[in-house]
Amino acid sequence: MHKLLILSNQADEYLRLFQESRVADLACEATSSPEQAILRGIDCDLAFGEPALLSQVLPHLTGLQWMQATWAGVEPLLDPALRRDYILTNARGIFGAQMSEYVFGYLLTYERHILKRYISQQAKQWDETAPGTLCGKQIGLLGVGSIGAELARTAKHFGMRVRGYTRASESCPEVDIYFHPPDKLAFAAGLDYLVCVLPQLGATRQIVDEQLLAALPAHALVINVGRGSVLDESALVDALQSGRLAGAVLDVFLEEPLPPSHVFWRTPNLLISSHTAALTIPEAMVGVFLDNYRRWLRGEALRYRVDFELGY
Amino acid sequence: MHKLLILSNQADEYLRLFQESRVADLACEATSSPEQAILRGIDCDLAFGEPALLSQVLPHLTGLQWMQATWAGVEPLLDPALRRDYILTNARGIFGAQMSEYVFGYLLTYERHILKRYISQQAKQWDETAPGTLCGKQIGLLGVGSIGAELARTAKHFGMRVRGYTRASESCPEVDIYFHPPDKLAFAAGLDYLVCVLPQLGATRQIVDEQLLAALPAHALVINVGRGSVLDESALVDALQSGRLAGAVLDVFLEEPLPPSHVFWRTPNLLISSHTAALTIPEAMVGVFLDNYRRWLRGEALRYRVDFELGY
Repeated sequence: MHKLLILSNQADEYLRLFQESRVADLACEATSSPEQAILRGIDCDLAFGEPALLSQVLPHLTGLQWMQATWAGVEPLLDPALRRDYILTNARGIFGAQMSEYVFGYLLTYERHILKRYISQQAKQWDETAPGTLCGKQIGLLGVGSIGAELARTAKHFGMRVRGYTRASESCPEVDIYFHPPDKLAFAAGLDYLVCVLPQLGATRQIVDEQLLAALPAHALVINVGRGSVLDESALVDALQSGRLAGAVLDVFLEEPLPPSHVFWRTPNLLISSHTAALTIPEAMVGVFLDNYRRWLRGEALRYRVDFELGY
Repeated sequence: MHKLLILSNQADEYLRLFQESRVADLACEATSSPEQAILRGIDCDLAFGEPALLSQVLPHLTGLQWMQATWAGVEPLLDPALRRDYILTNARGIFGAQMSEYVFGYLLTYERHILKRYISQQAKQWDETAPGTLCGKQIGLLGVGSIGAELARTAKHFGMRVRGYTRASESCPEVDIYFHPPDKLAFAAGLDYLVCVLPQLGATRQIVDEQLLAALPAHALVINVGRGSVLDESALVDALQSGRLAGAVLDVFLEEPLPPSHVFWRTPNLLISSHTAALTIPEAMVGVFLDNYRRWLRGEALRYRVDFELGY
């Protein structure tokens, strides 16, 4: 018998889904409270939930062998003061489709002038402005993991050219050409769209900086669905305010919710999507856990294992 | 030597493209004026251009053998009072990609709440409304020609289920299930999105009527990129005003430009895109002509030939 601590703001829904799945030899304790989790999860060997909550109880989970995080980013669990003597797996493979709908929804909104036409419509103006197209455009993916690969696949569907920027890997067949550090300015030159899907790491901090933004054509659009820390927010505001960059769509920010006084609220050609690009869908997340749990019972390697040194 | 009359509002651009293509044994006369065309095109055996202009000079083109229209819809040339003793080909195969970007741009705008989030942003509101998704949704294509087939392909890319409604053909492999007249209400039942790509014909007049709209679920979205005449405009207004239909996106109208007094300008949950869904790209259109011209010279059947009886 294994014992699973479910620590999540959606504890009730997850508990229901786990019970419906009728997994053999698995007892569940579910709560949204770290204090409760410390009391009830003391003898759990497995844990499941949000990294920001689980990091608070980690020192008390003395029997922990494997933790499945429900986020892609596991920053709270990477604190060097925390234990690393357990297997950590994160949420991957469930965000690609949502991210693809998000990114291409905004790219098409931009090219088809959907917001501009909506504003014209409020003024009863027949707006025949010719639309742009994705076809033939060049997209640059800053980070090509499972999400970047899904974006590349959709880009190819729409007839686009695809550049990838990665630490070293070149595993996605839909990427036409790869760039690696330190060639980020060569990567940026000539892009129509730059899409950042990088996690929060020391090496990705402010990778989208003044130099990278200056290397983009003035007609380019920047989308950040990675983490707020990968972007130099001031440099982006300067580029947008001066017209050196055509537009930006931001889902993630250094501070969330974005404070009412933040300059982004009054920056031109900037769209804010309030960290909604890809939500964890509980059904899909339980599926990821159950697949890994079967591997665990068979003694196999788990999918989506996090390397504590790399941070993803 | 063949002689081609180019009659188009973009006559200069088309003439330049034809000259750059250096086609052998082809002399071009280009004008945007029907009066000029009557004077200069009298001995042309070939014609190229907009149906609304060419229909005005057709009786004078006594030597005409083949006409290539630059529109998909050729209604002006279908007037029973006009000659039909020539080969008419229309513009096909060049609109699918644009139509796909248009339709999925609006579907994603809707599911991702892009307009709603834009409005929230104006009020500096952090709007975490959960987005919807295309994945798993059911799209119904009213008309499955070359444009409908491209829409089906993109729908499958996004993990959707696809229904097609056609007169008889079932040739598109991306359509999961076909419906034919008179089963339009069965076709509509359970659709999340209804996309109309039908041409203007007697048989398609007001095919989207009160009954069809009532057969759709209340959460459904209707998109019309076919012709204004296929839709009962009053029935759509009633459905939207009463909340029996979630939304509509219209590119085409019975009267264009839409008059300022039209009720559509003040109908809730209706987006107007001012007949911009798919523009004729001159380079692509010249490519269609040249491909057909080579077939013509070799005595082969031309592509995209219009059946005057069917009207497409």
